Amino acid sequence: MNSALRRILPNDSSLISKSMRYSVLAGGKRLRPILVIIAAELFGAKSEDVISAACGVEYFHTYSLIHDDLPAMDNDDFRRGVPTNHKKFGEAVAILCGDALLTESFNLITKSKSSEKNINLAVRILAECGGHQGMIAGQVEDTIIGKWNKEEKKLLKTKLKFIEIKKTASLIVASLKIGAVLADADARSLKALEIYGKNMGIAFQITDDILDLYADKKLLGKKGSDTGNNKLTALSLYGRHEAEIKVGKYINKAKKALKIFENKSEIFVYMADYMMCRLY
Amino acid sequence: MNSALRRILPNDSSLISKSMRYSVLAGGKRLRPILVIIAAELFGAKSEDVISAACGVEYFHTYSLIHDDLPAMDNDDFRRGVPTNHKKFGEAVAILCGDALLTESFNLITKSKSSEKNINLAVRILAECGGHQGMIAGQVEDTIIGKWNKEEKKLLKTKLKFIEIKKTASLIVASLKIGAVLADADARSLKALEIYGKNMGIAFQITDDILDLYADKKLLGKKGSDTGNNKLTALSLYGRHEAEIKVGKYINKAKKALKIFENKSEIFVYMADYMMCRLY
Repeated sequence: MNSALRRILPNDSSLISKSMRYSVLAGGKRLRPILVIIAAELFGAKSEDVISAACGVEYFHTYSLIHDDLPAMDNDDFRRGVPTNHKKFGEAVAILCGDALLTESFNLITKSKSSEKNINLAVRILAECGGHQGMIAGQVEDTIIGKWNKEEKKLLKTKLKFIEIKKTASLIVASLKIGAVLADADARSLKALEIYGKNMGIAFQITDDILDLYADKKLLGKKGSDTGNNKLTALSLYGRHEAEIKVGKYINKAKKALKIFENKSEIFVYMADYMMCRLY
Repeated sequence: MNSALRRILPNDSSLISKSMRYSVLAGGKRLRPILVIIAAELFGAKSEDVISAACGVEYFHTYSLIHDDLPAMDNDDFRRGVPTNHKKFGEAVAILCGDALLTESFNLITKSKSSEKNINLAVRILAECGGHQGMIAGQVEDTIIGKWNKEEKKLLKTKLKFIEIKKTASLIVASLKIGAVLADADARSLKALEIYGKNMGIAFQITDDILDLYADKKLLGKKGSDTGNNKLTALSLYGRHEAEIKVGKYINKAKKALKIFENKSEIFVYMADYMMCRLY
């Protein structure tokens, strides 16, 4: 995955190219592009057919991190163990770098090896899952929730689940569906992957929240700004024990959705179990 | 154009939808979506076939204005006669609103009535003209140029033309090519429209620079921040007289490119002449 990203990224000496390379190559688990690939492989496509789309999804994810780290948002100084994009290149370039990665992500999707129809569907999936009714809806809610401890717990639970689904699960679902659609998957399989992705996404966000507070900064590559910002998270709302139980519950739901793929979905089971392992 | 935008924009009560509607419906000349439509009509398509793409291009343009106005960029308080998005909704929402409009612009392109192949081409044109090798390259150069008066005039001329072409002309070219491609235009016509658009774009930017300094704030809807920011513009580099001569020169070049369309391109001639009228 890293070699593909390195090959696809612009490598001229312009500031915008340097800034794009800096953030995309700063590391990260590459979870989303891997999901694109394994979803495509599940339906018989080759990884090289969708590698461009996989890079596109990683671009999209990286843009969201760069903008999320900005002073007006989470105001984070470190990401993936190195200074955040705006700390390195300044705020203006960081905003433009996010915009450039977002824009280029769609270009990369169109370069997949698939039918024109499926490529269009993939573009639409990324726009819808990543847009104002998907990821951004979650980001906005996450940003404006503010002094949440004054609200009622029941309302907060609803809001938290909305944030987890929209902010995090949306792009996980998009990754799986993009890979599957490019490999011409049927509607029933797409639905199953959607349920798998949604539950994986929620589990992933809760795990991240736990690690944000408890993990070693060096391992995680960032300081736990969410705690400092008094953010609404599963950890702050439920406490560690209950949050960990929730991770297990969502992982099980995710794995259950894989049933229709019978023994072809082992890798997806591993991915789900990996969520749990991150906690220990 | 405005009624189509009003229909397409989300109209729920969420903050992100309100913010999107606010900036897209704040007015503006709608130059770019009109170019999409007249380019499509030149090749026999109907305006309704490309109205979605036209709205997409206007979304894209609006995102670029919202991000350009941010404190870390031009730090403008007014746009189109009303407070800028970040002045009205705060910086975080303004960043996310720009991201949402950018993302949704690609979704809107895919909803055009055309072949899957041409829709893909249109997505690619927007991403390439609006991305790190197009509009954003110009934005970055425009942002970092800083204390330009200390540099040599020859170098500055080159840089200024780069900014005018990338920052402004790119999206004008994209609008024309998207309309034309969706109407299945041939390569020779696309090339002609590209030359027309590039020269129109430069003329448009110079005109804007002149108006930024000399026009009534109420008419323009913004204060002349470019002058206050000591920006490199045709006006600051060449002075008003020479800048106006340049507008005329680029307009003539633009019109010359239309020759291959014979008497079918009258509307494009009017559009070019309109650039000149704005100055008087």
